[in-house]
Amino acid sequence: MPSTSADLATIPTPALVLDRDRMEHNIKTMRAAIGDLPLRPHMKTAKSIDVARSLFPEGVGGITVSTLREAEYFFANGVTDVLYAVGIVPDKVGRVAALVRKGALVRCVVDDIENARQVAAAAAAAGITLRLLIEIDTDGHRAGLAPDDPQVSELARLIHTHPGTILEGIMTHAGESYGCDTPEALAAIAEVERAGALQAAHQLTTAGLPCPMVSAGSTPTALAKNSHAGLTEIRAGVFVFQDLVQSNIGICSIDDIALSVVTTVIGHQRRHGWILVDAGGMALSKDRGTAAQKNDYGFGLITDLAGTRVMPGLKVASANQEHGLIAADDGEPPWEALPIGSRLRILPNHACMTAAAHDRYQVVQTGSTKIITEWPRINGW
Amino acid sequence: MPSTSADLATIPTPALVLDRDRMEHNIKTMRAAIGDLPLRPHMKTAKSIDVARSLFPEGVGGITVSTLREAEYFFANGVTDVLYAVGIVPDKVGRVAALVRKGALVRCVVDDIENARQVAAAAAAAGITLRLLIEIDTDGHRAGLAPDDPQVSELARLIHTHPGTILEGIMTHAGESYGCDTPEALAAIAEVERAGALQAAHQLTTAGLPCPMVSAGSTPTALAKNSHAGLTEIRAGVFVFQDLVQSNIGICSIDDIALSVVTTVIGHQRRHGWILVDAGGMALSKDRGTAAQKNDYGFGLITDLAGTRVMPGLKVASANQEHGLIAADDGEPPWEALPIGSRLRILPNHACMTAAAHDRYQVVQTGSTKIITEWPRINGW
Repeated sequence: MPSTSADLATIPTPALVLDRDRMEHNIKTMRAAIGDLPLRPHMKTAKSIDVARSLFPEGVGGITVSTLREAEYFFANGVTDVLYAVGIVPDKVGRVAALVRKGALVRCVVDDIENARQVAAAAAAAGITLRLLIEIDTDGHRAGLAPDDPQVSELARLIHTHPGTILEGIMTHAGESYGCDTPEALAAIAEVERAGALQAAHQLTTAGLPCPMVSAGSTPTALAKNSHAGLTEIRAGVFVFQDLVQSNIGICSIDDIALSVVTTVIGHQRRHGWILVDAGGMALSKDRGTAAQKNDYGFGLITDLAGTRVMPGLKVASANQEHGLIAADDGEPPWEALPIGSRLRILPNHACMTAAAHDRYQVVQTGSTKIITEWPRINGW
Repeated sequence: MPSTSADLATIPTPALVLDRDRMEHNIKTMRAAIGDLPLRPHMKTAKSIDVARSLFPEGVGGITVSTLREAEYFFANGVTDVLYAVGIVPDKVGRVAALVRKGALVRCVVDDIENARQVAAAAAAAGITLRLLIEIDTDGHRAGLAPDDPQVSELARLIHTHPGTILEGIMTHAGESYGCDTPEALAAIAEVERAGALQAAHQLTTAGLPCPMVSAGSTPTALAKNSHAGLTEIRAGVFVFQDLVQSNIGICSIDDIALSVVTTVIGHQRRHGWILVDAGGMALSKDRGTAAQKNDYGFGLITDLAGTRVMPGLKVASANQEHGLIAADDGEPPWEALPIGSRLRILPNHACMTAAAHDRYQVVQTGSTKIITEWPRINGW
């Protein structure tokens, strides 16, 4: 915890900044969008118990994680209900079993019959009954069985009947929603996600198998103006911070972005038209998620140090390891407004990747440079 | 330190692997290439005292760093001679001064007269005399004054005469060498770097100013078959590990790459032709440094778990946060050779960025999966 006088104007740079007001606004927006449907936020973005507490002011409920390290960290901080949303394999069952034996309610996902058989055997050998969801691929994005694949019910039956496992239902994630940039396209992919999830769930119930959980969601599909009827929960993560990729998709404005990197101007390269800053690829990540979108923001957009005024026509055009090169879309950058030694903030393309470059958040209020607290975060596996 | 039975076949994945034999070979290759010229290795790649000790078996000599955190870490581990090779600004002088007062020999770089004046004032206020090199831009890559810019000698005179600073000479880095892929192009850019460094140094000596240090180097230019005559030291970093970008440049073979990520197959997506692994953008970084080179390796090449057999025609074609998608250049990936639960290694595009995603190295010998030791590394600022 920094002293009460800590300020973005004086802390060592680069550093990761979290605007708590904007984060709370983003959380409210998501809660309003999904109504009474339970939110199981994906903590892969924030990896912070303090952010989890902001999501659940009355006690942290069920969450989603992308690594077992996250599961262990959140459980150690009192979070008992965890969905590990990356395919489980036998070698990882031991760590899940250790959490379950301590009282955690951990659910894992599978999409392959032979692997599920081995996972079930590993769970039985570890002395636990493993709760499993079947991963469904509704949009050809990544992992999962197709909603109409007859293996869905075959896999479900195996899980339901094996003494090492409990069938909890199905889950899906419409990752292709990241490729959308109109409300119509977003609504369409959200409906693909919902319909595919329901179709897979229908396979289970038709086969006489239980399907208590129908879990779906990404930030874009959760915020699409769609019905979520039939789903039992929404998983979304990046909405807490938002980022430039999400603004290009159209589900937030740039003024909603709660995450930024504070950086210091370390050089003026007038011959080439670059302002150099001390936030490069290490502090921003090399994620170029906006490269294929309607607005290519390079490695990030620039704001003033207070974080409220986007500097028009400027972006981080190039990122070496510890150097960011800010250039103007047209003409020269504002040399006088950004002298060497001055500070600014950079809004990230992809909040998950940028946050992962840091081990803590400097928490501020909108429009202020005063650091109200420091929140640690974890990384690794 | 893991137990003596630790093995890549059983540790949690993804994890960062360092082949010590290959690293030692790469160090010998660099020493042979530069002969008697002192090597001031850039520790921004490894950020590990154990790697520094491998570079200097008889006691760690002068090193280069990219962050003050590295300077503090290496000094705490007994390394006293440090060149901080990213432009210094007044706000950062306090941390340098703290190291100097403890006995460190820290050198910093500047390329702007007004900033140098403020840095010198900050050094004087902090009660130290700051050792400065002038950064020279020999190839239009990043920071620095042009070798023939009259400001070079003007800045040198300011540094030499100001009571807060000591003039140590000039430094340059031919970052454009990363864009080369023939021995001829590499030799040409290495000569541009050397000639520019000497031209800048000549400005100083012609003006009657001292220039004891003429520091240059990048891994590609250091390994180019060129004269380094006139330089007083070589700075290079990534050579200790090498990577796919360097192999495309042509200064190492793929079999020289000492860094890899061990990963587990977590899925077969037969409909789309993907093998899913648990190393995604978080474990590999989002660096796409080979995208513009003669061989585009996606997010990395695949080897067997022993790390010696590159699997032909396979690469990590796409990287989500915790999912890597392995695809074949032609046809289907080898489903039977890589069953779910099996392990492999991924060779990185850019060793600096991939290493930064991890907090330790699992150290092995070539061709072995047995972990002989674990070396911690640092990140952050």
